Amino acid sequence: MIAHLVTGIGELVTNHPGCGDGPLGLLPDAALVVEDGRVAWVGPASAAPAADARTDVGGRAVLPGFVDSHTHLVFAGERSAEFEARMSGVPYDGGGIASTVAATRDAGEDALRARLATLMAELRAQGTTTVEIKSGYGLSVADEERSLRLAREVTEETTFLGAHVVPPEYRGRTDDYVALVTGPMLTACAPHARWIDVFCEPASPHAFDGDASRAVLEAGRGAGLGLRVHGNQLAPGPGVRLAVELGAASVDHCTFLTDADIDALAGSDTVATLLPGVEFSTRQPYPDARRLLDAGVTVALATDCNPGTCFSSSMPLCIALAVREMRMTPAEAVRAATAGAAAALRRTDVGHLGVGARADLTVLNAPSHRHLAYRPGVPMVHRPFEE
Amino acid sequence: MIAHLVTGIGELVTNHPGCGDGPLGLLPDAALVVEDGRVAWVGPASAAPAADARTDVGGRAVLPGFVDSHTHLVFAGERSAEFEARMSGVPYDGGGIASTVAATRDAGEDALRARLATLMAELRAQGTTTVEIKSGYGLSVADEERSLRLAREVTEETTFLGAHVVPPEYRGRTDDYVALVTGPMLTACAPHARWIDVFCEPASPHAFDGDASRAVLEAGRGAGLGLRVHGNQLAPGPGVRLAVELGAASVDHCTFLTDADIDALAGSDTVATLLPGVEFSTRQPYPDARRLLDAGVTVALATDCNPGTCFSSSMPLCIALAVREMRMTPAEAVRAATAGAAAALRRTDVGHLGVGARADLTVLNAPSHRHLAYRPGVPMVHRPFEE
Ligand SMILES: [Zn+2]
Ligand SMILES: [Zn+2]
Repeated sequence: MIAHLVTGIGELVTNHPGCGDGPLGLLPDAALVVEDGRVAWVGPASAAPAADARTDVGGRAVLPGFVDSHTHLVFAGERSAEFEARMSGVPYDGGGIASTVAATRDAGEDALRARLATLMAELRAQGTTTVEIKSGYGLSVADEERSLRLAREVTEETTFLGAHVVPPEYRGRTDDYVALVTGPMLTACAPHARWIDVFCEPASPHAFDGDASRAVLEAGRGAGLGLRVHGNQLAPGPGVRLAVELGAASVDHCTFLTDADIDALAGSDTVATLLPGVEFSTRQPYPDARRLLDAGVTVALATDCNPGTCFSSSMPLCIALAVREMRMTPAEAVRAATAGAAAALRRTDVGHLGVGARADLTVLNAPSHRHLAYRPGVPMVHRPFEE
Repeated sequence: MIAHLVTGIGELVTNHPGCGDGPLGLLPDAALVVEDGRVAWVGPASAAPAADARTDVGGRAVLPGFVDSHTHLVFAGERSAEFEARMSGVPYDGGGIASTVAATRDAGEDALRARLATLMAELRAQGTTTVEIKSGYGLSVADEERSLRLAREVTEETTFLGAHVVPPEYRGRTDDYVALVTGPMLTACAPHARWIDVFCEPASPHAFDGDASRAVLEAGRGAGLGLRVHGNQLAPGPGVRLAVELGAASVDHCTFLTDADIDALAGSDTVATLLPGVEFSTRQPYPDARRLLDAGVTVALATDCNPGTCFSSSMPLCIALAVREMRMTPAEAVRAATAGAAAALRRTDVGHLGVGARADLTVLNAPSHRHLAYRPGVPMVHRPFEE
């Protein structure tokens, strides 16, 4: 077994408060030993053990790789014209998803796989090392199963989102569509999925109300899937409380929250996943991250990368927006994009760099984690371990 | 002379309305011939002439390289701690510049040159092909002269900004400092500069009022320099009208404008250069770009890349912010980042891709210019002509 010493780390984010300073567990002048893909040792560079190989990162900051716990990467087509129209005032209500569904159904498997590979490379180049991917642009048994099969080729974190919107052929027959999702579609999809998710948004004519969402989640749980919810994106609604009641790992968006929602989250294991790229790209108000953090809720940041409401794959942009627009500190934002998002996936092997963690390192062309917010838009990920 | 054909251009932004559709003069399925560093031919790919060499860009969009008409790239040190404090509520008044002045004066020439080279590479990687660079962190005769000499090594667009702030050793003696700037400092710096600039901001205790600004600009004009102004960043003030009165090429920031300021700009050749990265990184309100555009003012976008108020070198981020926050259309934002910024430098050889223009091409990993706003934060510049 080869021990690889990474040294010259100007600032190491361990995410273990006991390991170093502050909530990020910051270690200055640090080193880290990787063995068999795992962190085997971490500490001051001056105390680093001998190793078989050695990489000096020249004073750069090293972080746990970003965990993007909410993406929709299996799709065809794009919607830049819809984006342009929205920016000139056309409101978003979820209706545009149907155009991506049509394009995705029409696309061949190789085209979907190639697009997915391109996007995965794009995410990795921006420091993301763990990615959750949802279906939800197939919305038929065969098309959802295909999307999840393709997603599973690139990640373990696959989510069945047959209940993304009611597809056009079921318009006015939501109950029939829910029966499909919770019946044959779930049977076909569950083998390829770790999670089930639902767009719980009574305010949207395209999405699902509390009862339909409950039916979807309970069926998913019955099939052995973990639970996630798209909730409270466009208006207050039942999504957050349903997620907490059913023990979902995460409820995502959380743009419109009541006091009862905050209280429910604060007393639960459910993570509030904020997706500020969506608010950036839809010109909606940002979620109140401070209220969540101050109430003790675990907060995650993710991109929601999708062709409609946020075609950004950039976790650094999410961090910069969290600081600028949601008044998170740089440390809170970095923690939410790593440890917080790992919690949203109920993962303990990623999102930190303690001994035993996966050796998913993100190296910045910068001396500190603060630069992710201080230098918005600047590609800052250095990749010393690749060609 | 080698003729190099660039073909497979999915969308070409010519910036000549007569050449194609809309204000960007968009040509679909286009090609372009480069000879001796200039555009020699442009038109539909189907009509492309024979050439000695050929690059197919695979359906990507091609734009004139971004013109970043406002940067401060010669400095030492960084101010991420000041940024973090500002994000938690400490207001910005220009006072932090002094810490960069101290670090810059202390730095060796090689260190400044190396930092500058790193930043220039970073800008180029994000699609910027013309860069203006200001002095302003030296604030002594020798240190300003050194900054401009270094800037001139990498660009023709150098700007003497001795009147950035009053340095600590002249505190309370602004008149004496203005005498230095307009006297021996100007004499030493003018040979290395194309432009002179002043931070005209009576609201800041560190910057210059209207009379001092006028003295600086008139002295610069007397030494053969073109005029630029930092104006109306922190409050309404005399900057914009002074710039127009003296025929400055550009007045930059324009965050707080009166009706009289808009009228003055609309009747002038002075470009309004907006720097939305500054508002992003200082949490100030954004300038009212729509009011300027609707009044017929020529608008430019630039980064203001500097270690204090905006340490972003990303023209794509400026474009995304212009669309999200200033309600510019994607086309208006792209035009402002290319042709508009070229006008702010009074350049006719860059900022467009008509015949005779410099062959500064920015190729996107995307099919259209809209993707710069549609895909915020995503590094999207493709560099087919480099290793
Ligand atoms: Zn989503
Ligand atoms: Zn400036």
